[in-house]
Amino acid sequence: MTLLQTLNINGKRLNQSLHDLAQIGRLENGGICRLAFSPEDWQGRELVRRWMVEAGLQVRIDTAGNMIGCLPGKLEAPALATGSHIDTVPCGGKFDGNLGVLAGIEVARTLQENGLVLNHPYEVMVFSDEEDTMIGGRAMAGTASLNAADYRRKDGRPIDECVNQFGGDWGHLAEARRTRQEVCAFVELHVEQGGVLEMAGKQIGVVQGVVGLQRYQIHITGRPNHAGTTPMDQRQDALVAAAQVVLAVNRLAIDPPGHRVATVGALQVWPNAANIVPGQVQASLDVRDLSQAVIDQLVADLKVEMASIAQVTNTKIEILPQLNVAPSPAADHIQATIAEASASLGLSFMAMPSRAGHDALEMGRFTDMGMIFVPSEGGFSHSEVEYTSPEDCTHGANVLLETLLRLDRHYR
Amino acid sequence: MTLLQTLNINGKRLNQSLHDLAQIGRLENGGICRLAFSPEDWQGRELVRRWMVEAGLQVRIDTAGNMIGCLPGKLEAPALATGSHIDTVPCGGKFDGNLGVLAGIEVARTLQENGLVLNHPYEVMVFSDEEDTMIGGRAMAGTASLNAADYRRKDGRPIDECVNQFGGDWGHLAEARRTRQEVCAFVELHVEQGGVLEMAGKQIGVVQGVVGLQRYQIHITGRPNHAGTTPMDQRQDALVAAAQVVLAVNRLAIDPPGHRVATVGALQVWPNAANIVPGQVQASLDVRDLSQAVIDQLVADLKVEMASIAQVTNTKIEILPQLNVAPSPAADHIQATIAEASASLGLSFMAMPSRAGHDALEMGRFTDMGMIFVPSEGGFSHSEVEYTSPEDCTHGANVLLETLLRLDRHYR
Repeated sequence: MTLLQTLNINGKRLNQSLHDLAQIGRLENGGICRLAFSPEDWQGRELVRRWMVEAGLQVRIDTAGNMIGCLPGKLEAPALATGSHIDTVPCGGKFDGNLGVLAGIEVARTLQENGLVLNHPYEVMVFSDEEDTMIGGRAMAGTASLNAADYRRKDGRPIDECVNQFGGDWGHLAEARRTRQEVCAFVELHVEQGGVLEMAGKQIGVVQGVVGLQRYQIHITGRPNHAGTTPMDQRQDALVAAAQVVLAVNRLAIDPPGHRVATVGALQVWPNAANIVPGQVQASLDVRDLSQAVIDQLVADLKVEMASIAQVTNTKIEILPQLNVAPSPAADHIQATIAEASASLGLSFMAMPSRAGHDALEMGRFTDMGMIFVPSEGGFSHSEVEYTSPEDCTHGANVLLETLLRLDRHYR
Repeated sequence: MTLLQTLNINGKRLNQSLHDLAQIGRLENGGICRLAFSPEDWQGRELVRRWMVEAGLQVRIDTAGNMIGCLPGKLEAPALATGSHIDTVPCGGKFDGNLGVLAGIEVARTLQENGLVLNHPYEVMVFSDEEDTMIGGRAMAGTASLNAADYRRKDGRPIDECVNQFGGDWGHLAEARRTRQEVCAFVELHVEQGGVLEMAGKQIGVVQGVVGLQRYQIHITGRPNHAGTTPMDQRQDALVAAAQVVLAVNRLAIDPPGHRVATVGALQVWPNAANIVPGQVQASLDVRDLSQAVIDQLVADLKVEMASIAQVTNTKIEILPQLNVAPSPAADHIQATIAEASASLGLSFMAMPSRAGHDALEMGRFTDMGMIFVPSEGGFSHSEVEYTSPEDCTHGANVLLETLLRLDRHYR
């Protein structure tokens, strides 16, 4: 019997940690409010730090306020890293982020209690402010602006103050940057936050990458007019044009083969009265895919359709870029390793993109990155009803352990 | 040379009256603010009353506050009536309503100065509060509620107080009701308030009737979800459903032959965020046509389409009635008379519906009704840019005179 077939994390202990951490910031409805840089976040980090130390990790805070626990390896080598975040949205769940951090610690505990030392150093990272500015991951990837004024946190507090309060050092933010020479791979375990695994009946998602995101504002200008006295053929109805745009967006996302998503989530009408033909519409567009080319193609196709819609409806349609985040593909060999690890543990798995942002997105900018997903019941997340079963949490952590053991042999 | 070929109103005098009345409630931007039951409305009515008396009309106020000027006829017979309103929207023009009242007076002046007495009594009516409750026309048609609490005037003042202040008598409102035995025909001259005549290059609109109106609220319920993590085939996107409804409404109005109009003028999305698949949409529907059957058919067809849209988009769609005003057709022989009168004056004309509400709508509920339209430049109305040329005002008043002369011979 080889080591690879026998080593397992302690699922009961992992789920107890999830439960214990979830007491900090617990709301009456069962949700968790542990906003980044809040007293609850601090309290959570103190608990996590204690667990890290107990698992033999050496804990430090980098200049971006990221908390990093490190288990030395046998060799002088770049680290194998994992981690996630413990900050939440205003009413979040106990799995989003937390699972990735606590599974990382559980892996360390398992190595420790089995007297195993990896060749590579092993790092468990707790990233700062994932749910808002992603300052932690960005600083580590070197993609963060060093100018505090460029950040507008939802709670209004200046980011430099927040980071410094949590043990960071804004003045030396650039020093938080890591390189491939320091971290050879980063693997994040996370709950899916969607319903794909559940619908497919699979236990493990092998993430192909974190999708890129483009966001636009669409402005449609027609002519407001009396809904009674304006014959149909004299109208310049901005909402009729907008309806065609909404359906074009939907069709361009659905029709070609692939997994792209495109959404018109927000839409306002002026003057928005029952008896007035709409004169103006403003709508949002959100497009995500693993492939930059696919996103670019969808937007290009949409622009062509919008020109024709504008002509047919006698309106003017403008599209203004708002946000552009490039996709972050997972390393092929890490995807393969996660799949092999899952198979060796007898777990069903499937390849899928991550359509939400994660710390791994930034890590993938400078080193080999992979993500492991476990199912979210009903696809719910960012909500008090977020739920992943104890068995699925245990499976995910075992796949993380198995993947790290295999990667430890992969990197020389 | 017969009388019918020579009698003309005094266009200069008519346009001078339009100008003089427009000084009351004049705004800095050139618009008119003469809200019903305001001091400006009172001042306007005093001027109109003076002009009526000068034109030989006997003036009375009925219990609904309508001001009615009457020229006795040669015979004991029901009256031929015309008229309109002089109240305006908060920033209206000087033609809407005013032209119909002043042309009616100009007809009386013309009869008087030519020593002509009609067989029938001739009445010029100034209706109360056309731009809001239409209490004047409704009381005359017997369609008004006698309960003041049923009315919510836009300015918040109780309707009974308003009516009484202007010489009406709310306690005897029912006595304002007229019958076919008292008024055998009502013909209203009005500016079109749309762009149909201008687009067609016609001088006179022979109104086929005032369209009926049905208004609905449409509620669409889908499921709000993360715009990133929710694959296209798992969405219940209420806005994608709403877009299909908007286009179905538009197509059902345009495609079958006819002149129906249908509008989705108001639309709200929840939660209305760029990164959330829309969970709910609420939209208005406004349908107008001369034929009740056409309106009913459009709504019935739409309900069938909505059921299929709900199925395809996995949403729930409800449609709730809000308002239902039956069409008020113009009498065929009055339409014919207006057309003949226009032709005899060498004016181009076309048949068309009135798609806005008018006092004539209520008059048509109990007696023979007709309307004459003259062009509105650019189709604008309820605005300071409302404009009808002096020539077109004169043409309209001449057609009114000619029509009344012909109707005076028609009714025995």
